[in-house]
Amino acid sequence: MGNISRRAMLGATGGLIAGGLLKTQADALTVGSAAAPLQTAQADPTKVLGAPTSVLGERAPGEQPRRGMARPAVTASSRTPHEELSGIITPADLHFERHHAGIPAIDPDRYELLIHGMVDRPMTFTLDDLKRFPAESRLCFVECSGNGGAAYNRNADPERSPGQIDGLLSTSEWTGVPLATLLREVGVRPGASWLLAEGGDAAVMSRSVPLEKALDDAMIAYGQNGEAIRPAQGYPARLLLPGWEGNAQVKWIRRLEVSNRPSMTREETSKYTDPLADGTARQFSFVLDAKSLITFPAYPFVLPEQGWWEIRGLAWSGRGKITRVEVSTDGGRTWAQAQLQEPILSKCTTRFRHVWDWDGGETVLMSRAIDETGYVQPDLETLIAARGPGTSYHYNNIRPWRVEADGRVFFAQGEGA
Amino acid sequence: MGNISRRAMLGATGGLIAGGLLKTQADALTVGSAAAPLQTAQADPTKVLGAPTSVLGERAPGEQPRRGMARPAVTASSRTPHEELSGIITPADLHFERHHAGIPAIDPDRYELLIHGMVDRPMTFTLDDLKRFPAESRLCFVECSGNGGAAYNRNADPERSPGQIDGLLSTSEWTGVPLATLLREVGVRPGASWLLAEGGDAAVMSRSVPLEKALDDAMIAYGQNGEAIRPAQGYPARLLLPGWEGNAQVKWIRRLEVSNRPSMTREETSKYTDPLADGTARQFSFVLDAKSLITFPAYPFVLPEQGWWEIRGLAWSGRGKITRVEVSTDGGRTWAQAQLQEPILSKCTTRFRHVWDWDGGETVLMSRAIDETGYVQPDLETLIAARGPGTSYHYNNIRPWRVEADGRVFFAQGEGA
Repeated sequence: MGNISRRAMLGATGGLIAGGLLKTQADALTVGSAAAPLQTAQADPTKVLGAPTSVLGERAPGEQPRRGMARPAVTASSRTPHEELSGIITPADLHFERHHAGIPAIDPDRYELLIHGMVDRPMTFTLDDLKRFPAESRLCFVECSGNGGAAYNRNADPERSPGQIDGLLSTSEWTGVPLATLLREVGVRPGASWLLAEGGDAAVMSRSVPLEKALDDAMIAYGQNGEAIRPAQGYPARLLLPGWEGNAQVKWIRRLEVSNRPSMTREETSKYTDPLADGTARQFSFVLDAKSLITFPAYPFVLPEQGWWEIRGLAWSGRGKITRVEVSTDGGRTWAQAQLQEPILSKCTTRFRHVWDWDGGETVLMSRAIDETGYVQPDLETLIAARGPGTSYHYNNIRPWRVEADGRVFFAQGEGA
Repeated sequence: MGNISRRAMLGATGGLIAGGLLKTQADALTVGSAAAPLQTAQADPTKVLGAPTSVLGERAPGEQPRRGMARPAVTASSRTPHEELSGIITPADLHFERHHAGIPAIDPDRYELLIHGMVDRPMTFTLDDLKRFPAESRLCFVECSGNGGAAYNRNADPERSPGQIDGLLSTSEWTGVPLATLLREVGVRPGASWLLAEGGDAAVMSRSVPLEKALDDAMIAYGQNGEAIRPAQGYPARLLLPGWEGNAQVKWIRRLEVSNRPSMTREETSKYTDPLADGTARQFSFVLDAKSLITFPAYPFVLPEQGWWEIRGLAWSGRGKITRVEVSTDGGRTWAQAQLQEPILSKCTTRFRHVWDWDGGETVLMSRAIDETGYVQPDLETLIAARGPGTSYHYNNIRPWRVEADGRVFFAQGEGA
């Protein structure tokens, strides 16, 4: 193949110079990655029989994505490594975790969901009961309301990857029974307006949920990406509230109490509220506003050469569909419309892409999402003006990345126009 | 909770009697399932701290789906256990396998894709080259053209599960570079009309593909459900031909030769053709016709009681979107329209559901898919009349399931009206 030339060709929709070598420092980002060497790789794989079929497939030795985390802990989180992923689906074993007292070991044969309170017929449902009801599936994101705290800071550590910043976001195809179906079974009484949702973990995680949401698109989910929900995501069943903060989507759901008021649990009073500058607090905000994140190029990736690169990222909104994502390659002075990957689904991540001709100079890359309500993802200044500096949740401001002349890319909160 | 009653309630869209116990004999179906006992399950999980976060999630001890197969082999297949799955996504480690000489171990750093033949600029592309081009993602099915051979037989073994019959079908979100982009880079010469696609496995798997398909929606895929394609599915890159038989979607793709005629490889002459009754053969059929499969209730499931049950299944067509699925609960005498789960995507599986009130009597359940071209999935007699009894591929006839009065469900090819 010595005669084969490499040439760039500009195609109708923007050609690329082929031949770049992608370099990454991703190994340094993960705990326990220790990717096995390609010991079995053959110089000519066509000259030796390959490996046999198996009951369960494995990843390639050199492809061992891992969730990011400091160390194993029961009151902690682990993060989806967005810089290593494509498309919108998160493999179940890479779905982020956020636990308040660890992952409970629940015997599915003893599992029960109790629905009681302001209902005509208090009932318990076994897992088999839940699976027998008419099912539904939907692709949607789950995001922790504390996702992206590192981005709400003008002096954020520049050596942070997309997963380290916003890895408390993952997308799955969830299957379960609409909560409306179960509420019809028990018969909600007039005057009811809230539910208390309680988990079966050692934190007895509890949140209040408006009845309106429960009757809209809430689900008691038992399936995730085709298989049973994994223990870290709520096995055997969790509350799914599409588009709402993850904290309210109680995992290991064991009890729903229908009521006429919120229950004012710890997680909606001392936690998961946004104190405002005027001394009041934003409470029961629930819905996650539109947000986007460039996943490539981003730290720790190093651009090996100037020329055409495709900027890639994820956009999502708890209020419905993403209608537009705009990308700036000059620190926010000008914005171009990115291409959105179909299908664009409500309350689901949408992959966006934008081809960029890098001239080799230092610049700042940014993205901003617009959803079907017309909401525009704000910059850091706008969000701080609205919420004040003291908040600990709901950080949906723009995430900028500084590209340096040597090709290194750093998280650059506070930079750009 | 002693006072909590269980009552049935008929809701607006058809209520269910809650409380059925789902029983299954699925353990007997899989190799090496040996599900770990729930040794760590707690009588009251709220009274003990749970497990810590981790870099990679695991399945619940009692939820250990496995691909079905006789024994590990290099020229063999393994099957997706549809009876254990929900939704449309197949977890990557449960995607079916069909290998002709095992799974090659390919070093991604040495991987190259050569495109040559009737082109202006023969070129090789490294994996990093492929990843640099503008990417696309799509959800679509991959199905082996030999899938469902057991269903092309009036005397088929009744003790077969959906996965054992049609497990050579799986659905993923694939990410890669459109083949049209690469063909624009090399410059296809006038008069070219076919490609030879060649794999890097020890079978040097080879198929001819019309240039028209290559320029339409073909992709060189390197991502699967967010992560790198797994070795069994073609790591580091495979040809993806949405809606076409799996055999032509060459895994471990290493060479594409642009030509003006098909190359008449072994896999499109002695294999993967359909001999017809008149002595001719159907060759280069490629596109998979519309098909559907009831995944529940189906062998080895046993219905524990009469009453409301949701019939669930998958429908798909290589020609575009599924527009309708009809279900018969009386052996084909009458048909009702099933509910289709949104989003309905072209050349992708669609989940269908139909609530059925079982009176406890023996009957036969059937489904038939209709796609956007108006094509209707045929019954066995119609397909045999068209293809003759001697074919070994493209078995898209209706799959019936007999429900016996004791609740057992058996595969029942040849039964029904």
